[in-house]
Amino acid sequence: MKEPANHSDIVLLQGGEQKLRLRRLCDIMGESGIEAILVHDKANIYYLTGRVFSGYILVSRKLDSPLYFVRRPNHLEGPGLHYIRKPEEIAGTIAAAGTDPTVVALELDSLSYSAARRLDAALGRTEAAAGNASIALRRARAVKTTVEQHKLRESGMRHARVYSRIPHLYREGMSDIELQIEIERASRLEGCLGQFRTAGDDMELYMGNVLTGENANTPSPYDFAMGGEGLNPSLPVGADGTVIRPGIPVMVDVNGNYTGYMTDMTRCYVAGTSVPEKAEAANKLSADICRAVADAARPGAKAADLYRLAAGMAADAGMEEYFMGHRYHAGFVGHGVGIEVNELPVLAPRSRDILEAGNVIAVEPKFVIPGIGAVGIENTYIVRDSGGAERITDAPEDITPLQ
Amino acid sequence: MKEPANHSDIVLLQGGEQKLRLRRLCDIMGESGIEAILVHDKANIYYLTGRVFSGYILVSRKLDSPLYFVRRPNHLEGPGLHYIRKPEEIAGTIAAAGTDPTVVALELDSLSYSAARRLDAALGRTEAAAGNASIALRRARAVKTTVEQHKLRESGMRHARVYSRIPHLYREGMSDIELQIEIERASRLEGCLGQFRTAGDDMELYMGNVLTGENANTPSPYDFAMGGEGLNPSLPVGADGTVIRPGIPVMVDVNGNYTGYMTDMTRCYVAGTSVPEKAEAANKLSADICRAVADAARPGAKAADLYRLAAGMAADAGMEEYFMGHRYHAGFVGHGVGIEVNELPVLAPRSRDILEAGNVIAVEPKFVIPGIGAVGIENTYIVRDSGGAERITDAPEDITPLQ
Repeated sequence: MKEPANHSDIVLLQGGEQKLRLRRLCDIMGESGIEAILVHDKANIYYLTGRVFSGYILVSRKLDSPLYFVRRPNHLEGPGLHYIRKPEEIAGTIAAAGTDPTVVALELDSLSYSAARRLDAALGRTEAAAGNASIALRRARAVKTTVEQHKLRESGMRHARVYSRIPHLYREGMSDIELQIEIERASRLEGCLGQFRTAGDDMELYMGNVLTGENANTPSPYDFAMGGEGLNPSLPVGADGTVIRPGIPVMVDVNGNYTGYMTDMTRCYVAGTSVPEKAEAANKLSADICRAVADAARPGAKAADLYRLAAGMAADAGMEEYFMGHRYHAGFVGHGVGIEVNELPVLAPRSRDILEAGNVIAVEPKFVIPGIGAVGIENTYIVRDSGGAERITDAPEDITPLQ
Repeated sequence: MKEPANHSDIVLLQGGEQKLRLRRLCDIMGESGIEAILVHDKANIYYLTGRVFSGYILVSRKLDSPLYFVRRPNHLEGPGLHYIRKPEEIAGTIAAAGTDPTVVALELDSLSYSAARRLDAALGRTEAAAGNASIALRRARAVKTTVEQHKLRESGMRHARVYSRIPHLYREGMSDIELQIEIERASRLEGCLGQFRTAGDDMELYMGNVLTGENANTPSPYDFAMGGEGLNPSLPVGADGTVIRPGIPVMVDVNGNYTGYMTDMTRCYVAGTSVPEKAEAANKLSADICRAVADAARPGAKAADLYRLAAGMAADAGMEEYFMGHRYHAGFVGHGVGIEVNELPVLAPRSRDILEAGNVIAVEPKFVIPGIGAVGIENTYIVRDSGGAERITDAPEDITPLQ
């Protein structure tokens, strides 16, 4: 169940992988006129080293390799590593390496205001005027390397394996949350880390969501495609204890973090053998939209056009008022996914993202139909140089009978 | 399994509870010379309303009741509620209500730098010079109301109920993670929300940690008492797949979020009947330290003195080098707990916190002994006016045989 042992090298990425990532990042920094960045966000530290530590990484276009300022854990080693107790200790080392600390850009979208101001003072400046490192890192991470794509494919394969077991986890009389708990357990036994990394503060979740019936129509405060009341007002999303009834679809959207890289996947199930025609049709439409978007998801395509393609197909089928929710409509149909679940590109009407080979996108055209509930599928795709995107959540797309 | 339905009132707190919380918060704001604060952090929004939404709450000492600026969900209602699409829409309403938007303090410890600067601009000012709302809210939340204490007691009761089942979840040959998965499932079936809310960016976790053997001695990047290598370098903490062996203690520290308020609880288990004498002694010492700290945890006590009491007992027993870790020593022995797991007061050597009645603290004097692993217990206590703290994680403290 576990990856190779966590040895003590500060960098776990092998065979030129780190250089590849750094080169792309430095190119993007160059385009934005950023000479150096200081990285603190754990998702970004994982991207640049293949491990998570508490501290900072200095990436400078002037330096051949990064400097590592580590607070914890205390057993790491490697070139460029400096142990620190607090950020005030780093400016001297940065200056000694030939980079002006006052021009180092910070991750302004993830550092708290207090932390950013403390770093500004530690770097000897009064204002964070050196640019926003979050933007450069987000752009770099949006294009996955071959190694990252491999990890994503592995997550997708194990994710699909768990979904194939869902019909066997169901027992008559189960509620949404009871089925979800069995799916969580099956996922964990398959190696799911559970952890759901997100950028920003607009997503909270345990491992995923199972929705059935009217509950799907309860709007949530979060930036997910679907809502649901949840079990407690402190976490108002997802399953609310509704008993699964024959003929009412059950939508399963449970996260697939098996490798540090997440796949996103949704499928619908139904107890009994009959499904309302409207649900069958909506599910088929969702699968058709996925295929059309995947086929159009080629390098150079505009993310906003992919959204319009999806929304247009929903409208042509007369399903506009149910598309991406009914009482509330989510404003996107897909999103980048990788170390975090909300990466670039974003498939939304006002997105300015242009697709590139190596983007990994989750496409989730879903419907909430009164009297029926949530219906639709979600797949994760890798954008390729040619021939449309590759589906890495390889599983049947029909509404699957439970049992 | 679920709390009363999430009706559409913006405030779910009943019977004067919100007024009680606001009065305490406004008193603290007054002491700090803060006239008004704008709240965005989801833990703080939950504290002030009993629900989570995406948006902002304006609390002003000049206003009888708060103003609510809600982005999502879109079905809420109540006095003072204003629907917004973006933060630029709120300054006019704040000014119209008689509060100068330029003096409104923000949560500088949780807002990202970008978000805080955007709010500054929206509030018509060039610098965030109005104080730090995070500090006032942290102080307010450190003293739990009767209603909050009730929710914490309920979490503790259900938490203990799950722990009583742990011996029956064990099967011979299980690994740490396999036992953990069964504990996660039992917790979820008991109603655990799973979600583990933390302040800051120094904690990541799925539901909790199970540690056995040498794995406990692997330092982690996180601010937890114990480490562990984890299953993947992207989440380096906790269980690593070590098989549970007879006579080697298994430490279970799985979160107890049953009500939106978390209890923290650790117990040790052992397969077979014999436990090394050293482990028995360390566990007994841990329980003795818990009792001593709980007895000394009275209003007016210094949190730093409670740490010294615990560390002193460990040193007197010759266990200093194993106290709070061996290869790495965590710098605290306890912490406040409530909506988040790292609240005030902090029981650490340099803490300036003074205990107050209504504080809720987790006390976790733990040891990592080479050749044995992690041993010790953790309880959550409510600080009372007199008579020492009340233990709300009511369960046997000995090392318990598995089956």
